[in-house]
Amino acid sequence: MSFPLKSTYQPLTSNSALALVRRLQLFEESAALTCCEIGNANLNHVFQIIDTKSQEGVIIKQAIPYSTAFGKNWSLTLKRSTIESHSLLINATNVHQLVPKVFYSDETLAVTVMEDLSRLQILRTGLIEGKSFPLLSEHIGMYLARTLFYTSDFALEPKRKKELVQKFTNPELCKITEDLVFTDPFFDSATNEYEEGLQKDVELIWGNQSLKLEVAKLKYKYLTQAEALLHGDLHTGNIFASATETKVISPEFAFFGPIGFDIGQFIGNLLLNAISLEESKQEQLFDYIDQTWEVFSSTFTELWETDRIEFHSRIDCCLENLLEQTFEDMIGFAGCELIRRTIGLAHVLDLDGISSKYKRLQAKRHALALGTQLINNRTIIKDTQQLRNYFTNTLSYSCEHHA
Amino acid sequence: MSFPLKSTYQPLTSNSALALVRRLQLFEESAALTCCEIGNANLNHVFQIIDTKSQEGVIIKQAIPYSTAFGKNWSLTLKRSTIESHSLLINATNVHQLVPKVFYSDETLAVTVMEDLSRLQILRTGLIEGKSFPLLSEHIGMYLARTLFYTSDFALEPKRKKELVQKFTNPELCKITEDLVFTDPFFDSATNEYEEGLQKDVELIWGNQSLKLEVAKLKYKYLTQAEALLHGDLHTGNIFASATETKVISPEFAFFGPIGFDIGQFIGNLLLNAISLEESKQEQLFDYIDQTWEVFSSTFTELWETDRIEFHSRIDCCLENLLEQTFEDMIGFAGCELIRRTIGLAHVLDLDGISSKYKRLQAKRHALALGTQLINNRTIIKDTQQLRNYFTNTLSYSCEHHA
Repeated sequence: MSFPLKSTYQPLTSNSALALVRRLQLFEESAALTCCEIGNANLNHVFQIIDTKSQEGVIIKQAIPYSTAFGKNWSLTLKRSTIESHSLLINATNVHQLVPKVFYSDETLAVTVMEDLSRLQILRTGLIEGKSFPLLSEHIGMYLARTLFYTSDFALEPKRKKELVQKFTNPELCKITEDLVFTDPFFDSATNEYEEGLQKDVELIWGNQSLKLEVAKLKYKYLTQAEALLHGDLHTGNIFASATETKVISPEFAFFGPIGFDIGQFIGNLLLNAISLEESKQEQLFDYIDQTWEVFSSTFTELWETDRIEFHSRIDCCLENLLEQTFEDMIGFAGCELIRRTIGLAHVLDLDGISSKYKRLQAKRHALALGTQLINNRTIIKDTQQLRNYFTNTLSYSCEHHA
Repeated sequence: MSFPLKSTYQPLTSNSALALVRRLQLFEESAALTCCEIGNANLNHVFQIIDTKSQEGVIIKQAIPYSTAFGKNWSLTLKRSTIESHSLLINATNVHQLVPKVFYSDETLAVTVMEDLSRLQILRTGLIEGKSFPLLSEHIGMYLARTLFYTSDFALEPKRKKELVQKFTNPELCKITEDLVFTDPFFDSATNEYEEGLQKDVELIWGNQSLKLEVAKLKYKYLTQAEALLHGDLHTGNIFASATETKVISPEFAFFGPIGFDIGQFIGNLLLNAISLEESKQEQLFDYIDQTWEVFSSTFTELWETDRIEFHSRIDCCLENLLEQTFEDMIGFAGCELIRRTIGLAHVLDLDGISSKYKRLQAKRHALALGTQLINNRTIIKDTQQLRNYFTNTLSYSCEHHA
């Protein structure tokens, strides 16, 4: 399935999306297909095509070469569509049950045709609604361990690894993370968006030189350390879930980076949700965090035992050293996520959706205080229980100082 | 000058080398050119073409797709010729006075036509002969600071940096270093070559689990940490020098790796020479080492102050942190160089040329003991004076234990 539709990029319409699906023969000839554009077409056109007879469907996602998100025009590379489909195909070999199935992709049109996941819910929405996802940690821990291990130097021949590093070079999307996660929130940058009531808290961060040095080290890791093929944007808005299923979507930011980055962003977003909840409801989020690390590290260890090929990986303590470094990086990257989602351009509904201004500001102060502590103390935080202690201590701090 | 000579690779002969130079019009039409193949044609054909009237000359270097070095047939990528010429061209923009001028390159023929440096001497040979190179440290410190800074994230736009990382992906040559520097010497590998008298010392290294864990960490840095465009093989055999000039040649191993690697290999080779000398003659080598680090760090600091573009580099202590990490890595990589040149496949004449078997074995034990100490203690060695203390202490150790 690789015939080109057009020789140049053209935006799909409902009609051309339908025509594409018919040409790909993804449905029976007798199917009664309907097409509906879903999503806000900020970054991508997304069409849902359903056979009203069988109720089976597919999704067509087409990258848009510009963005109208956040009230400004950004030009965006269409190559992200190729990165996404290639990344999904590699994931399919390692965690096929945890990613959408890809039926077709076309580089020129920046189109990917994939499994319709509308039976599932965006994880962030479900968490905000207070739903429970009993298999979430097992699935995401497994996803992280398998996708990261099998694209690392411990599992790949060095030549194959280097070919993949070349293939997944992703400068435009990485630049977004370099700016919006690691740089702009820590300086008085034009892209920042924060509530007026946080001015003093934000200025404390901008003036905190030791914090900024630690952030600079984490950014440098992101810029230089090609350990494994990351998802690159693993927040709870890029996960579809139900009580029984989990699917990780949209790896447009995929590139070879530090192993702790994806885990850190995921944990960071769970912490943001926990911050938004009453104390009695936070337990579940901490369970997710505990279990995600537990499943990740035990699965990674199993793969290391059975499938490692790197010579030095036979040495005592080599795995322990790697997991210790990954945990430290995870804590640091989670801290960056807490801060950037509070000060920076891209917010999360978990916090912005708190209707009481008092509670919302308190939650955001908690996020900033916890983020700062995690970044600064990442070398001494050794397990998820200690992480939880920092969560509690920074909550009382943010209440005391701003009540 | 980019017309292709042939559409497929063909070994040059003296005649075709002369024809190439004439076509490139590098000499006056009246020139009386002679051509002479120099070198051992192990890895490359090297032709020296001289105009006997003006005594001016050029070198033509052609990569050979196999190697007969070390008594075995290795197939070798011709792409190394492209990597070398592209690296020399980038170096020419940063340190034009410290690299040979490139007149022409042809990817298909794997040919580079460059400045004839026969007025200079291979540094290793000069050091073994006891010659003095008063400008060596200033030149190499400058070479390292400028080539590394200007290809790092501190000086390049992230997109340009990532394009260069792609372009200088060099799996075949990196594999040689991964195996011969970081892996084989630390295990009972078929490629190893060491003197019978060292059997016990070598087995001590193979059984030293904590040393091997530290080597694994250094290898992992080499595999994953794309900080700057390295030379990749900066030993004293790849430097031409005189009392007034220094030229770094043969960057076939160039790729984006850890900033401390080149400096570590250079320092390691100076240490190997110092080990081969009587105590009274070692002073000069330590001066070279002190001054190389001094010039490297002060030049890097100047460039940082004037030419840095990375946002976070404005933060206090960011440069200090980077230089401290680079020093630590340098010490570790130097330690690896000492060990691999003693146990591994590729030896150095500084040690192998010691005619007294007793002194030679003592020198090699010194290299192994010092290498081990440098790798294990690289986080606590903070300056070149401390490095010198380790040199002295391991000398007395190797004498006491094997006298």
